[in-house]
This record gives sequence, structure tokens and C-alpha cells, in this order.
Amino acid sequence: MSQMPGREAAQHGNRLDPWFDHYAERAHNLRASEIRALFSVVSRPEVVSLAGGMPNLKDLPIERLADSARDLIARNGSVAMQYGSGQGWEPLREQICDVMSYDGIAGADPDDVVITTGSQQALDLVSELFIDEGDVVIAESPSYVGALGVFRARQADVVHVDMDADGIIPQALEDMIHSLRKSGKTIKFLYTIPNFHNPAGVTLSEERRPHIVEICQREHVLIVEDNPYGLLGFGSDPLPALKSYAPEVVVYLGSFSKMFAPGFRIGWAYAPHAVRDKLVLASESAILCPSMVGQMAIGGYLVDYDWYSQVKTFRSMYHERCDAMMKALAEYMPDCTWTHPEGGFYTWVTLPDGLNAKAMLPRAVRAQVAYVAGTAFYYDGRGTNHMRLSFCYPTPEEIREGVRRLSTVVNAEKELVDMFGVGSVPANAHIDVEPTLPTSDN
Amino acid sequence: MSQMPGREAAQHGNRLDPWFDHYAERAHNLRASEIRALFSVVSRPEVVSLAGGMPNLKDLPIERLADSARDLIARNGSVAMQYGSGQGWEPLREQICDVMSYDGIAGADPDDVVITTGSQQALDLVSELFIDEGDVVIAESPSYVGALGVFRARQADVVHVDMDADGIIPQALEDMIHSLRKSGKTIKFLYTIPNFHNPAGVTLSEERRPHIVEICQREHVLIVEDNPYGLLGFGSDPLPALKSYAPEVVVYLGSFSKMFAPGFRIGWAYAPHAVRDKLVLASESAILCPSMVGQMAIGGYLVDYDWYSQVKTFRSMYHERCDAMMKALAEYMPDCTWTHPEGGFYTWVTLPDGLNAKAMLPRAVRAQVAYVAGTAFYYDGRGTNHMRLSFCYPTPEEIREGVRRLSTVVNAEKELVDMFGVGSVPANAHIDVEPTLPTSDN
Repeated sequence: MSQMPGREAAQHGNRLDPWFDHYAERAHNLRASEIRALFSVVSRPEVVSLAGGMPNLKDLPIERLADSARDLIARNGSVAMQYGSGQGWEPLREQICDVMSYDGIAGADPDDVVITTGSQQALDLVSELFIDEGDVVIAESPSYVGALGVFRARQADVVHVDMDADGIIPQALEDMIHSLRKSGKTIKFLYTIPNFHNPAGVTLSEERRPHIVEICQREHVLIVEDNPYGLLGFGSDPLPALKSYAPEVVVYLGSFSKMFAPGFRIGWAYAPHAVRDKLVLASESAILCPSMVGQMAIGGYLVDYDWYSQVKTFRSMYHERCDAMMKALAEYMPDCTWTHPEGGFYTWVTLPDGLNAKAMLPRAVRAQVAYVAGTAFYYDGRGTNHMRLSFCYPTPEEIREGVRRLSTVVNAEKELVDMFGVGSVPANAHIDVEPTLPTSDN
Repeated sequence: MSQMPGREAAQHGNRLDPWFDHYAERAHNLRASEIRALFSVVSRPEVVSLAGGMPNLKDLPIERLADSARDLIARNGSVAMQYGSGQGWEPLREQICDVMSYDGIAGADPDDVVITTGSQQALDLVSELFIDEGDVVIAESPSYVGALGVFRARQADVVHVDMDADGIIPQALEDMIHSLRKSGKTIKFLYTIPNFHNPAGVTLSEERRPHIVEICQREHVLIVEDNPYGLLGFGSDPLPALKSYAPEVVVYLGSFSKMFAPGFRIGWAYAPHAVRDKLVLASESAILCPSMVGQMAIGGYLVDYDWYSQVKTFRSMYHERCDAMMKALAEYMPDCTWTHPEGGFYTWVTLPDGLNAKAMLPRAVRAQVAYVAGTAFYYDGRGTNHMRLSFCYPTPEEIREGVRRLSTVVNAEKELVDMFGVGSVPANAHIDVEPTLPTSDN
């Protein structure tokens, strides 16, 4: 077959990309997250990764799930392997309403649920619906790296609202809304992870929840409540979702990735009715419909298995790992402070003054431990003296060893800073970006 | 739990949607396709639907596929149910390169393949990367309704380039590019379905292929080649893809939905390297990663089954159905003209002068037959005297009966027009929108 030379096209664009001059403005806002840069490192077996956010699936009943998969295809293959509704399979939307009742959302309407390719797609669709260039999204300080990426791709201006150990500080939120409006900004929504925050590891207290909702309702600011970890509290049952206080003010995002498994890529949005309408249209435009195989597999899991017992098994496992991390931090890193998660996957560590987590990363990798530097979780370059440590995937022994290794790096770095006033230089250039390895973070 | 009244929020927005004043500009461009409006009708068992685009899965070896699904989870469950790479599972990307070799794409690089939630997502991502508000996309006349929806959501200006029985007319394309540029427009890409066009049912001839590519290369217009039906030609093997002539000029979109099954929602883009880079970032932002279960199920199918024989079985089935439709049209609708597909799912019917397919639809539904009116496939309101008929899903007998019923409606309508000069009034108000039924069209 005749191959035409690509030279003519290459006169346009630039040397590396003949289409460089064709991209939409928003395309220039896409960038690899700092987390992705770590994957080449994290995948080496000798490295203890405290970086990733992959749920630990070791406790799932694989053999039984395999039989369920066979039954699904044998009995309903012609439905499961066909196109489905853009909004999602109705029986699963009903089951999702049951799942949300554990978050204090009573009597949810399946008609207001939209099933998506993971809750990431739900977040992307909400952003597509609401964000014009330059609009403000308020997010916690710090916030989920994958959300910041979505907001950046939509050319939003993200401002971070302060948190403490009880989550968003209501007065800080209120002041921020007023001050943004005074300066003429258009606020589109508050993006928040109230439970077992990624990366901060804190939970919005029950006392503050109605207060936050009331502020947003009064100020007419939509809340996007992202709740992937809500069922994974170590102690008691979940606190009531923000959605439960004022359904019309909140788009709730849920996910099966952490309470079951991410491989089916099934999440959802539960939205005010008019927003739901638009979400369905946007999702049909984006993917036509979510996978019927995935939806029916999850539906079967919720019916045929004692899924809430499985959630409790996950809770114990993650609790044990979190305890291991807390103990190791106390033992090995007395010069740091960190949050004390009551659930989820992460703790947020504050380094001694003058230490730069990003600059320190190559040393950590040499010491065979990985983490994510705090800067990944800010829109504005902050976070240099923070790191996110995850305790979801490694064993308690590995966690202990990982923190021990990390402490040697932190201590050495601290000595440098104490002696010379500066630590390592920024590290970007030292880390290979390896995009073909798992994007395990969520 | 305390429920706050929604009244305060409702003072903003409008009566039906408190967030009406919050949407992004692009959100107002989302609208339900004319096809979706048909679903309530199409799902009635007494109606012969010549409207949908669902592939016919009856010939798939369901029992064997059920066993494969069990084996997949039993042997690789911890990988299949986990997060995967944003770009897609490498073994499947390699297999996709083999699949594309049937389209004349030799030596494709798996590193330039991005796996997506159906090829619809690939199209959405390409549009996100390239389209700024007001940019021009050139599409065939008519074009795929789902693509027009994506372009509309991205606020593109779509212009339709003329086709004849051999596909896009090269001179028309060249003239259009020149005239658009003369009027100061920015052309972002040509969107084309070269094989067994949806809805037109025509195929770009082998002679024209290098010519179309040469024009786009010379004019520096990117080609987005959408090829879901390429393997489903009734006669010989596929014509060479546009991508095979000048890889740097073409983003090729492929899908397993028609050559295997849509329920896994697995498609792909095969793009110039620099574009691929950005597609991966955009896809990670949109969904983190495609379903590993879906990817590994498809990968297993390609390895363990004689998938090309299955494609040939599909070809014969669709060929038989197409023949049934061609014969029925010739017998019952001598006043119409239609295209003669050599593959795929659709034929494009031109009604006698003065007939309006959209206005006629309620009568057709009363006569228990459904189709899609031609206006769905234009950005500019054209297509009133056209309809798309699909032959993929109903049996040959049903197709014959459906066309017979349709002919009674067309003939009655023609009598009206011949007598009074006008036919039925436009029909929108008569059709219920039923969004919870399958979005079967692609």
C-alpha cells in the first residue's frame, strides 16, 4: 500500500507533533499527574510503595465470583453483552439507592441515579456541565489529584479552602465564598470528600455537616460530594452524607471501586433531577452507555453476596494496616506530624520545616520506599513539605519497613537542612514517566 | 436526619432547575437525539424496528463465553478486578494491532493505541482535544448522529461534505476546505466513516481513498476515521483504511461492539504519537482507566476463539438481512430510492418529493414500524425527505413485513401530498421520550 510521506504535514505544528497548532485551548491544560511519574518506581518489587491507591482485593471470594461471572453470561449473555441504557441499568440503579441508605440517604430515587465508568467519569461529566473557563471550583486544601486534573482540563480556577482535623472549617468556607464573589469570581461548586479524605485522611465531623450544607444552600453554591471511601470507616457506620441534609444542593458521587473492586469501572452520580437530565445526555455523548457486563456483575454481587459483611472484612484489613502505619510513624518519625484517619486509605504527613517532599523523592526511591509529594494535591504549588502515605495495599510488615526506610531519608534530609539551610533540589528530572503502568490512584 | 427546605436555592435558577444559571455554556448544547425519542416505541413487541443499531448477537457461542468468563476471574481475578493502565492493557493493545492488520494497517505500534469505553469515548476525547468553540468539523452528508452530538456538545460548527455512492466526493472536499478557509474558519478535522457508512450505507471507493488522504495531508486537515463496521463487509475483505495511507494524518477509531459485542464497552483510538500522548491524559482525566474485566475478556476472546470466523458468520447473517431489505424495498417502495450497502447495518432511503420522514413517523408507528428520520443525521436541519433503515436486528421475515408496513404509510402520505401538496405535520410532540430504554444506536 502506498505510504505518503508525512513531510508536508510536518511543516505545520512542530518537530514532534504535526498537529500542535490544531489543539483546543483546553488540551494544553492536560498534564501527567505527579502520581503517574511514580509508577515505574512503584512497580519494582523491592520498593515498598506507600504511594498508590489500589484497593486490596485479597479478601474477595474469587472462586465464587468466577462462578457468578459464568452464570451471568450463560443466563443473561445476550443482555449483558448488548448495549444498555445511557443512564444505566435500572435494577442496579435501584440497588445503588439501597447502598446509599448506609450513608443516611433515605428513599433515594433510582431515576435520579446515573451510572458511569467509575465515579471519575461522573466527576468529569459534572465538570463538563458546570465549568466554563475561569470559573471557580472550591476544593479542600489539599484535594484529590484526579479531581484537580479534571478541573484543570476544564480550565477552572481552583481555590483551596482550609481544613483541620474535623474537615472543612465552615467559617473559612463562608469567608472564601464572600471574598471570591466580592472580587467578581463565578463559583460553580464546592468539591469535597467528606469521609476519610484523599489525601488528607480526615473526616468532616457530624457537627459541621449541616453547617457546611447550610452555607452552600444559603450562598447558592452546588456541592459535589465525592464519597468513594464512605463505607470503609474503621469504627462505626458512616456519618450521614451531605446529600442527606439537602438533596437539591448536592451531587453525590459514589463508587464500587473501594467497597468491592475497581475492575468493572462502575460508579455513579446521584443528582438533583434537572442536573441528572443533563448528566445522562452528557454521558451518552461521552460513552453511549456504561458496560452492561460490568453493571450486571455488580448487580449480581449485591444480590447474591453478603456485600456488607465483605465491606466489614475490608474495614478490618485497612484498619489493621492504618494502625501499623500510625505506630510506625510514631516510632520512626517523631519530627513529623500526621493525620489520624478513621477510615479510608491515606494519612497526610507534615515534614519538619524546610524539608521538600518532592525534592526528597529520589532519595526515598533509592532507599526503596515511595510516596506522593504533597504538591500533587494543590492547584497552586503548595504542599512542598507534605506527603501522602497510603496504607491500603502493602502488608502491615511492609508498611512498618516502608516507614522505617522513609525515616532514614527524612532524618538525613533534616540533617542537611539543619546544617546548610537547604535540602535536596527538586526532583522532576530524575523520575521516568512510565505511562503504560497502572494508574492505580483514585 | 434534618432536611433543610430547598426553597432558598430555588429562588435562583428556574422553577424546574435551581442550578439553571450555573451551567457551563456548552451544557446548553446537549440535547436528546432524535433516535432516543424512538425507544419507547421500538421496544413494543408488535413494532418492527428498522430504527435501532443494535448488533445481533444470536450467533455468539454464549455457553463457551460463559466458561471463558469464569476462567478469566478464577485465574486472573485479582488483575481483572483491579485498576489498570490509563492507556489500556498492553496485551490487548497488541492484539488490536493484529485486528487492524485486516484493515490494511501493517505494523501498527501498540504504544500508539489508546483503549477507551467504546469508540464513542475515543471520539469524545479526540473532540475534547481539538475542538474550541466555533471550530469547524467537516463531516459527511449525512453523518453519524452520535458524532454530531459530541461535536455539538463541544460547540463545533459542523459542515457537511457531499457524498455519492462512492463516498465523499474529493473535489467537493477540496472546494469546501478552500471556501471555509477563505471565510476565515478554522477547520479542526474531517470526521468520516469510510466503510458501510452510518447512516448512508455507502463505502468510500478504493480509488478515492488515497485522493481524500492526499487532500487532507496537503491542506493539513486531520482525519478522524471511524470504522466500527469495517470488518462486516458482505463480500470481500475490507478495503485499506485511510490510516494505512498516511498514519500521521489520521486518528483511527475502532470498536469491538460490532465485530464481537458491545456489552464490554471496549473501543480504541490509534493515533499519531503526539496525539496519543494527549489522548491518554484526557482519558485518565475522564475515566482513570478502561475496565480491566472488559479488556481481558476481549483479549481472551481474540486468543481463544476463531474470531475472524465469527466475523464471517456475522457477515453472512447481515448480508442475508440486507438482501431481504433490498428485495422488499424494490417490491414495495418503487417510488423511493435507496443506497445499496456492501456491508454494515444501514440503508439510506430517499422519499418521493414533498414527503417529510419526521412528520410521517407517528403514522409509521401506528402502522407498527419504526425508522429514524433523516434530520437526525444533519447538523443543519436537512434530511427531511430521508430515513435510515437498519437491517441488523430484525429477521429477514420481519424486515420484509416492516418494509411492507412502511410502504403503506409512504403511499398514503404520497397520496396526501399529491392531492393537497402537503403531508403530515411535524411529529415531535407525539413521541414520548423514554430515556430509560436502551440507547441501542451507534
